[in-house]
Amino acid sequence: MKNYIARREKKELKIKGETIVQADTLKTFCRHVFEKLGVSTEDADVTADVLVQADLRGIGSHGVARLRRYVNGLREGQMAAMPNVTVVHETSTTTLIDGDGGLGPPIGVQGMRMAIEKAKEIGVGFVAARNSNHYGIAGYYAMMALEHEYIGISLTNADVLVVPTFGRNAMLGTNPISVAVPSGGDYPFVLDMATSVIPKGKIEVYQKLNKELPIGWASDELGIATTDSGQVLHNLNNKMGGGLLPLGGVGEVMGGHKGYGLALLVDILCGVLSGAGYADTIYPKTPDGEPLPANVGHFFGVLRVDGFRPIQEFKATMDDMIRRMKDTPKAEGQQRIYIHGEKEFETAEERMIKGIPLHPKVVADLKAIAEETGVGYDL
Amino acid sequence: MKNYIARREKKELKIKGETIVQADTLKTFCRHVFEKLGVSTEDADVTADVLVQADLRGIGSHGVARLRRYVNGLREGQMAAMPNVTVVHETSTTTLIDGDGGLGPPIGVQGMRMAIEKAKEIGVGFVAARNSNHYGIAGYYAMMALEHEYIGISLTNADVLVVPTFGRNAMLGTNPISVAVPSGGDYPFVLDMATSVIPKGKIEVYQKLNKELPIGWASDELGIATTDSGQVLHNLNNKMGGGLLPLGGVGEVMGGHKGYGLALLVDILCGVLSGAGYADTIYPKTPDGEPLPANVGHFFGVLRVDGFRPIQEFKATMDDMIRRMKDTPKAEGQQRIYIHGEKEFETAEERMIKGIPLHPKVVADLKAIAEETGVGYDL
Repeated sequence: MKNYIARREKKELKIKGETIVQADTLKTFCRHVFEKLGVSTEDADVTADVLVQADLRGIGSHGVARLRRYVNGLREGQMAAMPNVTVVHETSTTTLIDGDGGLGPPIGVQGMRMAIEKAKEIGVGFVAARNSNHYGIAGYYAMMALEHEYIGISLTNADVLVVPTFGRNAMLGTNPISVAVPSGGDYPFVLDMATSVIPKGKIEVYQKLNKELPIGWASDELGIATTDSGQVLHNLNNKMGGGLLPLGGVGEVMGGHKGYGLALLVDILCGVLSGAGYADTIYPKTPDGEPLPANVGHFFGVLRVDGFRPIQEFKATMDDMIRRMKDTPKAEGQQRIYIHGEKEFETAEERMIKGIPLHPKVVADLKAIAEETGVGYDL
Repeated sequence: MKNYIARREKKELKIKGETIVQADTLKTFCRHVFEKLGVSTEDADVTADVLVQADLRGIGSHGVARLRRYVNGLREGQMAAMPNVTVVHETSTTTLIDGDGGLGPPIGVQGMRMAIEKAKEIGVGFVAARNSNHYGIAGYYAMMALEHEYIGISLTNADVLVVPTFGRNAMLGTNPISVAVPSGGDYPFVLDMATSVIPKGKIEVYQKLNKELPIGWASDELGIATTDSGQVLHNLNNKMGGGLLPLGGVGEVMGGHKGYGLALLVDILCGVLSGAGYADTIYPKTPDGEPLPANVGHFFGVLRVDGFRPIQEFKATMDDMIRRMKDTPKAEGQQRIYIHGEKEFETAEERMIKGIPLHPKVVADLKAIAEETGVGYDL
């Protein structure tokens, strides 16, 4: 549903001068940039694909707008271009891998492939990964299970932005949960949600619009709910307290402790179970405040549907459930009930034909990266 | 955290005339009632334990206050006293069981035991159950994994009370998610949360207090957020539309689509994957509106920690994460940051010593059940 919100806000922002780029062109450009920075062709291809898929699906915050972070990470040694990814521990159903500080997407794809292989052989597969970096959209990996008609699970922890219930400081990432489930109909079910109410990018949009935040999105440096987007960003960027609120908002009245619990759960499975960083230890720094290599953790799971019931029966039942949900009467003023992933699939279909609209700032950034790396910019 | 809220509201209600009953006494009474209704001693014991554990943990809504529903279900044939629980399908990592319409708790315990056995042998285990009934607190089953120092997962679907995002009618249950994770410290992590903002019982409490509901808890018969507790209950009880809102509230602004997605996910794993009911098919009725046996589904999962890393390392890391979370500065006016399960464990410790306070209405109900079944009431 992210892209829907993003689209609505894009309209409000009335962005002029967007550049429309075809997905293939964008992917090729990104791949070349990664290759120039020493990444293997295979890893460059995977990472480019993860970024461009995010843009295709309308999740621009995780698309090529992030290329700068990846480029800087590779250049400054925060991210290893040629990591030696190793298996630390393995059983017939589980694997722990160490990403050796590599880019998140290739580590994620490798982890999910391993989980799928296990599921093929034994019905289920679980892989935890440590010493990784930002892996883009969680849904990319969960959806890898769909081509086998398996159920896919993908979780990651992330840099601290979210304040625990009754806390004052950000101690958890937006720690997303993605689960992809095959169906027989138009689209599979693809849940891909941050466990915070909103991502940081939403606060930035509101700041640009000079709009008050709804109460329940963020808290100030005292841990009190606030509507001041500028203050929240200032505080977050300077580690002065406050931050995003977990799903359910501030305190317990609207269930904020539940979002906090989901964020903790993701951190346990991604960080504590893997031996990666967790809470405020994911992005460590030297005593002088210089950033050290990150230690992001991921968790991947795959369940074969036919471990429980035949896939055709399952898909027919999924379709019936989806139909029931979509056919139920709509709230006043609403025309449609969505199933998770549906908006993103529709956006991707449209953008595969019409191309991906890029914000002028993103285009300027890509041009600068092209110049710095010597990759021809012909977007 | 449920019990904390319950306790606060209990104070607001200023209930007089509560009866304090020891857990053992209460459990023995419930067991005898079930036995009188034809349930085997083992199943009666399990069901009594699940109910009393809920009361001990401060989750009165799922405690002996539910005994009446179980008694009526057994008497009226909605619940089978002596079900023939069968294994429908089994692999080395997964099992599908059919509960034959039995009481939820024995089916749940059997399912979770099977998942634990699989995990013992092969590292992980997953069990889906169909043709079951209400199984009480989801956390009971997740916590069964803790005595083996495994991670436990327990999900169930439930009768429709929750309205999907942009919908008008309740189409999903409060579909809880429970995950229990061992730690080395005082308490394990036990997340046990409905995927709705609040349970129906909270609306009932507000109605008794004649208090306005916070916006975001419930919607009216048009699917619009409402503060009118009486109307919400009237509508729900008469299937007139509206109901509880998913975690995140109405629409998408506060993330209601995320809570809706979690509720759908639980329904997929419990209902669609098992062949149980799902959405509005869990509690079917005859064309005349007479209730037919329910078809509730559950989903259980167990992960061995040592499939990833040594349990001692894991527990030490859990303790560090918990310490970091609890030691972080508190929001203004707050004294304590909680880890999930902590409040319930503290309540249970207190109630094991002091006894369980029962509301006069619950006591009256238990007395009536004692009379009807001929079980001596000596609470």
